[in-house]
Amino acid sequence: MANNKEKLVEEITSRDVDFAQWYTDVVKKADLADYSSVKGCMIMKPYSYGIWELIQQQLDRRFKDSGHQNVYLPMFIPESLLQKEKDHVEGFAPEVAWVTHGGSAPLAEKMCVRPTSETLFCEFYAKDINSYRDLPKLYNQWCSVVRWEKTTRPFLRAVEFLWQEGHTAHATAEEAEKETILMLNTYSEFCENVLAIPVLKGRKTEKEKFAGAKATYSIEALMHDGKALQAGTSHYFGDGFAKAFGIQYTDANNTLQYVHQTSWGVTIRLIGALIMVHGDDNGLVLPPAVAPHQVVIVPIMQKKEGVLAKANAVKDLLKAAGVRVILEDSDKSPGWKFAEHEMRGVPIRLELGPRDIENGQAVLARRDNGEKMTVTLENIDAEVKKLLAQIQKDMLVRATDHLNEHIYAAVTMPEFADLVENSPGFVKAMWCGDAACEEKVKEETGATSRNIPFNEEKLADTCICCGKPAKHMVYWGKAY
Amino acid sequence: MANNKEKLVEEITSRDVDFAQWYTDVVKKADLADYSSVKGCMIMKPYSYGIWELIQQQLDRRFKDSGHQNVYLPMFIPESLLQKEKDHVEGFAPEVAWVTHGGSAPLAEKMCVRPTSETLFCEFYAKDINSYRDLPKLYNQWCSVVRWEKTTRPFLRAVEFLWQEGHTAHATAEEAEKETILMLNTYSEFCENVLAIPVLKGRKTEKEKFAGAKATYSIEALMHDGKALQAGTSHYFGDGFAKAFGIQYTDANNTLQYVHQTSWGVTIRLIGALIMVHGDDNGLVLPPAVAPHQVVIVPIMQKKEGVLAKANAVKDLLKAAGVRVILEDSDKSPGWKFAEHEMRGVPIRLELGPRDIENGQAVLARRDNGEKMTVTLENIDAEVKKLLAQIQKDMLVRATDHLNEHIYAAVTMPEFADLVENSPGFVKAMWCGDAACEEKVKEETGATSRNIPFNEEKLADTCICCGKPAKHMVYWGKAY
Repeated sequence: MANNKEKLVEEITSRDVDFAQWYTDVVKKADLADYSSVKGCMIMKPYSYGIWELIQQQLDRRFKDSGHQNVYLPMFIPESLLQKEKDHVEGFAPEVAWVTHGGSAPLAEKMCVRPTSETLFCEFYAKDINSYRDLPKLYNQWCSVVRWEKTTRPFLRAVEFLWQEGHTAHATAEEAEKETILMLNTYSEFCENVLAIPVLKGRKTEKEKFAGAKATYSIEALMHDGKALQAGTSHYFGDGFAKAFGIQYTDANNTLQYVHQTSWGVTIRLIGALIMVHGDDNGLVLPPAVAPHQVVIVPIMQKKEGVLAKANAVKDLLKAAGVRVILEDSDKSPGWKFAEHEMRGVPIRLELGPRDIENGQAVLARRDNGEKMTVTLENIDAEVKKLLAQIQKDMLVRATDHLNEHIYAAVTMPEFADLVENSPGFVKAMWCGDAACEEKVKEETGATSRNIPFNEEKLADTCICCGKPAKHMVYWGKAY
Repeated sequence: MANNKEKLVEEITSRDVDFAQWYTDVVKKADLADYSSVKGCMIMKPYSYGIWELIQQQLDRRFKDSGHQNVYLPMFIPESLLQKEKDHVEGFAPEVAWVTHGGSAPLAEKMCVRPTSETLFCEFYAKDINSYRDLPKLYNQWCSVVRWEKTTRPFLRAVEFLWQEGHTAHATAEEAEKETILMLNTYSEFCENVLAIPVLKGRKTEKEKFAGAKATYSIEALMHDGKALQAGTSHYFGDGFAKAFGIQYTDANNTLQYVHQTSWGVTIRLIGALIMVHGDDNGLVLPPAVAPHQVVIVPIMQKKEGVLAKANAVKDLLKAAGVRVILEDSDKSPGWKFAEHEMRGVPIRLELGPRDIENGQAVLARRDNGEKMTVTLENIDAEVKKLLAQIQKDMLVRATDHLNEHIYAAVTMPEFADLVENSPGFVKAMWCGDAACEEKVKEETGATSRNIPFNEEKLADTCICCGKPAKHMVYWGKAY
């Protein structure tokens, strides 16, 4: 357990008073992360790393089930390699960390710490791919990357962060496009079913797409404060990188062809999303699927004979049933224990005292809605598993309702500006496709284009900004 | 499957002709790793990364079962932080990579990419530890580190490599010493039971210990060529780092005390050890516990009706039994398939042809010793699992025999020099404890002190080098 002696007297700022401060308080008090003396880099403490491990396991299983394999490439990129694709280097060069010395000697060529690994994968594929029999290559990598950000916030934006980056190569454009959408759908299914976070799927505008991509797709989640968070991206590259790096294969007719590529990634931002979608004024609220502790057993009057023995027996039973359970048997008061694990977002608190034991029962308290129920000890494992499933489901329903209640439509600029200003959430509006209008909307309202959904509605005939014929319906919003 | 069209005509160098070339051939032809344009850094392809994932899972479970938690700390260390413990900085500063620029601007203070993270953990512990209630801290981190090595070899020595580093803090010296030995024992048990590699456990001499440690313990494995490989280390720091970094806690009597620390690590060197302990002239030989594919099903006359259907049914059955199985149903010849998966070290080849199916049987061929056996299809899952367990056991026995047969004892320098020169392996010999003798032995024979076992034998009264009274029995050997 962490050193939280004074927790009970500390307060978390209310979400509605100062959401940013509330976030910082939760990160600190739920013992998720700490600052380090390394500017812009944070320390992931056991509790947040435990959440990340559960995210990794469940995403990795999905990747492998769809035929992807993990690899590990170097963390350094020589300057000349980074420069091979011109859009890509323009996008990333300004924000990389440069290694100039190895040991005491200056390097012949400086290298950056990878901000993303397209260039490394391309160089690898150029060697590794020869024939159509080698395709597709479906590789993924779990690692950390570095981007020299000036303003940082735990989990949301940092100089160094953990992520996964998928990099695939295909024989045809169609196959690569299919992969791009498959992985976007993998992310959205994962967010809904594991993180209990519904997302809006769609394509990014030209202005917002990844440096070097033909098309970028994103999933966008809505935080409690009504701001959007880009939670994952999937990029279609066409053969642009293949041409820059010379990645060719001989097809079945013995003709040389360029491969078509994709990349896709999610990061520890997902932990930030978990905090900001589900958390409340008592702290973190974790969906069971990513809760390092799904159940905390709090014994009542634990010094009474038999209480701790029974609590341990229940713990063993739940453990055997595959539940991640801890027994809070420290000498702290039950009140302290309740508050502590509420702060840490443990989905179920199981209370067990002498009278409960006498009656062959226990009390289950839900973190997500505060409800309490009494269950018999006899089938406590089945009851707990049922309740965990119910909580997981209810949290998604609640988050989905919150999302749907905060999607607005605007057909005029004043409407749009008013919504962005006074009704935090997503605003649907028509757009001509011109980057100048996109820029103007941002300047005037602070909202950026989030994405263009696959099933666009036709809210009006004309662009909300310039009045020219509309090409697309766009989700707009203020974003993290 | 990899692009290995020409494998059958290529040869692996024989181990006895040129062991170094054999190693390089196996790494390349078993599709384990590739070189990159980043000097000294390699690419871990899916097959070697798959082995690493199995190593990680099984080690991580052991760490967690003994109460350790995973965290993630920054990859950068500011220069001033690296310099806080003087022995440590002396040991590592000459071999680090320095980041001097972020984006386009020079940094106010240069930072190195972590060569190891003692300094970062110490800074973290100084903030995170306040009271005896916070102890012990049992943290571990999976990450990559960078050391500016000039001569590199895949898995054995590289500029960047993957590893885990445990860092713990304890109230007393005794507890920290106990942890140091516990983790050393965890490593040796893991090597034996999972990697089928027996190791010699012991303490390093002063000369060979870790920069900043009070004592370093190691596990040393014997490669097929008779050279030693340091396969893991566990360090006891006493309160040296605690004093340099000010890591103090208030004890139960409200008195300020310094913590006592340890660190311990293993790296992807373990993959190098797997190759060099078990491999043979046909390629890799993997113990079932870390084989990405434990069984390869090779259908015979697969175009005959019913063969592939049955092969798929057997695959599903084995998969359901928890066996990592692949079906090799490409249009390559059975001969090519046999050679390919032998090269890749798959523990069991399962051959299944029309006649086998007619007779309700299959042939299992062992990679480790070439034995074949016919088993009934009816209980093929149980037969395969039994055989996998047997192979795992036999591989350890074989490696243990090899180790024991290559431990020699010497009581005079000529004997010692002759053994090192002509009988590759470990040589036990007495030592006075003087670093000068250690240095002289190395200069004259090329053998270095590997470690001092916990149960020393008394082979003689005097140091093999200087003739003065002996203090310790040391295992010596040429090492990777």
